[in-house]
Amino acid sequence: MSKRIDFQTDPSKYRHWRIEYDGPVANLYMDVDENGGLFDGYELKLNSYDLGVDIELADVVQRMRFEHPEVRAIVMQSGKDKVFCAGANIRMLAGAAHAHKVNFCKFTNETRNTFEAAGAESGQHYICAVKGACAGGGYELALACDYIMLTDDGSSSVALPEVPLLAVLPGTGGLTRVTDKRKVRRDRADIFCSTEEGVRGQRAQDWRLVDEVVRNSTFDETVAERAAEFAEKSPRARDAKGIELTPLDRTFQDDGSVTYSLVEVAMDRDEGVATISLSGPEEDAPASIADLHAQGAETYMLKLARELDDAILHLRLNELETGVLIFKSQGDPEKLIAHEKLLLDNADDWLAKEILLYWKRVLKRVDLTSRSLVALVEHGSCFAGVLAEILFAVDRSYMMLDEFEGDNRPVATVTLTDANFGLMPMSNDLTRLQTRFLGEPEMVEKAEAAKGEALEAEDADQLGLITEALDDVDWEDEVRIFIEERASFSPDAMTGMEANLRFPGPETMETRIFGRLTAWQNWIFQRPNAVGEAGALRRYGTGVRGEYDMKRV
Amino acid sequence: MSKRIDFQTDPSKYRHWRIEYDGPVANLYMDVDENGGLFDGYELKLNSYDLGVDIELADVVQRMRFEHPEVRAIVMQSGKDKVFCAGANIRMLAGAAHAHKVNFCKFTNETRNTFEAAGAESGQHYICAVKGACAGGGYELALACDYIMLTDDGSSSVALPEVPLLAVLPGTGGLTRVTDKRKVRRDRADIFCSTEEGVRGQRAQDWRLVDEVVRNSTFDETVAERAAEFAEKSPRARDAKGIELTPLDRTFQDDGSVTYSLVEVAMDRDEGVATISLSGPEEDAPASIADLHAQGAETYMLKLARELDDAILHLRLNELETGVLIFKSQGDPEKLIAHEKLLLDNADDWLAKEILLYWKRVLKRVDLTSRSLVALVEHGSCFAGVLAEILFAVDRSYMMLDEFEGDNRPVATVTLTDANFGLMPMSNDLTRLQTRFLGEPEMVEKAEAAKGEALEAEDADQLGLITEALDDVDWEDEVRIFIEERASFSPDAMTGMEANLRFPGPETMETRIFGRLTAWQNWIFQRPNAVGEAGALRRYGTGVRGEYDMKRV
Repeated sequence: MSKRIDFQTDPSKYRHWRIEYDGPVANLYMDVDENGGLFDGYELKLNSYDLGVDIELADVVQRMRFEHPEVRAIVMQSGKDKVFCAGANIRMLAGAAHAHKVNFCKFTNETRNTFEAAGAESGQHYICAVKGACAGGGYELALACDYIMLTDDGSSSVALPEVPLLAVLPGTGGLTRVTDKRKVRRDRADIFCSTEEGVRGQRAQDWRLVDEVVRNSTFDETVAERAAEFAEKSPRARDAKGIELTPLDRTFQDDGSVTYSLVEVAMDRDEGVATISLSGPEEDAPASIADLHAQGAETYMLKLARELDDAILHLRLNELETGVLIFKSQGDPEKLIAHEKLLLDNADDWLAKEILLYWKRVLKRVDLTSRSLVALVEHGSCFAGVLAEILFAVDRSYMMLDEFEGDNRPVATVTLTDANFGLMPMSNDLTRLQTRFLGEPEMVEKAEAAKGEALEAEDADQLGLITEALDDVDWEDEVRIFIEERASFSPDAMTGMEANLRFPGPETMETRIFGRLTAWQNWIFQRPNAVGEAGALRRYGTGVRGEYDMKRV
Repeated sequence: MSKRIDFQTDPSKYRHWRIEYDGPVANLYMDVDENGGLFDGYELKLNSYDLGVDIELADVVQRMRFEHPEVRAIVMQSGKDKVFCAGANIRMLAGAAHAHKVNFCKFTNETRNTFEAAGAESGQHYICAVKGACAGGGYELALACDYIMLTDDGSSSVALPEVPLLAVLPGTGGLTRVTDKRKVRRDRADIFCSTEEGVRGQRAQDWRLVDEVVRNSTFDETVAERAAEFAEKSPRARDAKGIELTPLDRTFQDDGSVTYSLVEVAMDRDEGVATISLSGPEEDAPASIADLHAQGAETYMLKLARELDDAILHLRLNELETGVLIFKSQGDPEKLIAHEKLLLDNADDWLAKEILLYWKRVLKRVDLTSRSLVALVEHGSCFAGVLAEILFAVDRSYMMLDEFEGDNRPVATVTLTDANFGLMPMSNDLTRLQTRFLGEPEMVEKAEAAKGEALEAEDADQLGLITEALDDVDWEDEVRIFIEERASFSPDAMTGMEANLRFPGPETMETRIFGRLTAWQNWIFQRPNAVGEAGALRRYGTGVRGEYDMKRV
């Protein structure tokens, strides 16, 4: 799988999804093109999916929020007869390298989370209307929706057949949402997750697996009714007019580097290090919220978020041997803060709100990136507000202390804003500063008292906002040694360490999906019983059962 | 590793630990016998440990609670010069099979948790007095104590060198306790966990890694002072006189079956099934709390807990291919309830309290057992009170409905008592019934309203207390089919599924250690970067660094 995976698409290129807009309701049809797989070697039969299908779906959800603010309910349904969705494509999974499987699962998990976020944060609710077999990843799609409807046609069912059929877990949130979102009684969950054929009809509702079972003859009209009800009760503004998410301006180099308009990814494959440089705004902030709307996708805060998001995904999927990501920034922090302030001051404007909510998602994507994350706060940088969040998302941060010889850029500062104190929670539902100071909550108050101040290195260090302040004498060596050392560690141990160190404090469904379910799935994805020559995943479709080493671990 | 691992020991057999009792303070010395490894092929140098060392430690903690109720503070320290503890023995780990490594980690984790439980529940506080190198599992021992003291002698340090040195995680709670118990700031945790030599002196305290750093010249006396302070503020009764934990009455058969006095383990290795039968009490409950003390280790509730605990550990470590554990019971539920009632009515008596707390630990051990757990509630059974908890600990339960032809045992019943409504929380800090009914909390109230009633199958089913009630016609086939089916699934998928389905709801440090940290460690224990021929764990001690595939996952 050496071709570059591209996370940018748009409706004109979709091969697997169709949308029909009907005022506040959008009908979303999954209609996967069998021959439209991202890679060779498998056919996407029975609405099964691969990463390419999911990239389109993520684009659907994202555009719904920016381009279609009038939509208040989305009905997810199948464009095919007799099957809703058969889940992730097994041949694709069986043939994929371990790292691709894991990254694929992470991206699909992130996308499922965006359904729930759209309902909870923006009043765009996803309703899943299930006709036909809804199995594995198909049911996991349904689980991520706010409401699941199942037709009672005597054959349509929901199922998680992974364990009995494939010897792997329903890893796209399936097990976690069954227990923690649907709150299915444990022994019933046990039966459900070990029954290939799944559950249908009234039992599916009694067991809390779906919200409503509807007679087949009235299914479509009942679904339309529910969609209208969800749309009606959504608090969204009714007169919102969307903005177009225009194509990103990007150039990929052969060495893996990428140039965007505001983001630069400089790759050093030999060292296993990528440097992500973020530019502050050139222009002043839009003069008014109307100007923000007029700028649309070109407005600084949105453009930067889109470019950073794309860069992270590119590095995750296409540059597997890059173990260290270094974040830098250059620009005028004051100007950046002015751009952010317009959003913060207009949080009741749908677009301003959506841009901030998008930053929340992008920063979560950073948190969940299994690479060593480092921030270098250099002179001339603009780590302020949402960009300062990056300092609390990374594993370590180093900041330039005092003036450096021959460097006449403005001395390095960090500025906190309201964005650092509640708007950008992590997956654990705490802010990054609350997470950072779990043992010293009074430090969060101290940081808040310093809001708005351009903090130089000594103050930032005192306030615990950076890992270390280094002067001209030490900077180069210390940073180099750290990065070399880091790049030399076992990447697996780093991944496991980061998954444990980054998310202390309370757990949520999200932390549990990425922390517990994913870890067990990754373990199983290494076990011969699943992925060995005679394992169930490899043997799927051959008519021969997997052979198992029966030792329990 | 085919020799049977025995979890029973007593002080006369200890090779690795010494205890000096001094009234309310016990001085516990770790002094590992290099040649006392449980298996051949490694030497336990530098106070490194294997499962055998930990079995003794678990025995120390257990006996402290029953045999030495006068002890209120335990000072854990090294019996060797210059080294506190070097952690788990690396050669042992490098040579051990995957399943043994995982089971070893689970048992050591459970043992660490008992330190914390002893302090929190029984006012027996563990103080760790660190002189010399305290690394890896050594520091994890310290982390599990209530208070960590470090001498400032210029060389003594605490460290978690697993990641840089061995490419594995500090998996015995290390990462989790650093973030969630000690609440170390994340970037400092990152530095600490990637620095081989660890942290010493004042910085260890500033970074919250230890509670107190003390000058070497006054270290011993300061430790003694702290121990006296902890002892002083402990709420334990001062006149308690311990009971002796006499040796268990056991017979092991060659086929893996075991006969205890109240527990019978019947092994069917061909089917991969073990049946654990629990007997109700023959005798009436002790007439008074004084009688309970006089019976000591012979008293029914304590004896049953000890035997069940030992049986579970035996099956976990010695019978790896047994994928299904079936729990049965036979006896008079009324008599059982009377035994339990004496404990519940005398919760201020130290022994009554300790027996109930021990049941809490044993039931947690059942929850955490990575085997499919089934309960069969047959006629004549005594699933009442704490034994009824087993029905809510298992993955599925089947109960006999109505009379069975030719079976004149009393019809099957389930009886709930106060023990089911708060005294026996799971690792997630909810009761098993609260966990079971996470989606329908009103069902917990309904169950509580039925407390004391001997519920037959139909009522138990109505109340959601069992998975299925089966009559004479269906019982045999249904149970057989389920067990055969279950025994045919991939054991890895079952382990992963159970780890996710059994612990919904809130997370605690315990669920996080067993759910997240352990899963990542198990994954790493499968990765060539750690355990392959050129992996760091295998190469440790050869002077050659591990070779890593640098792909991030």
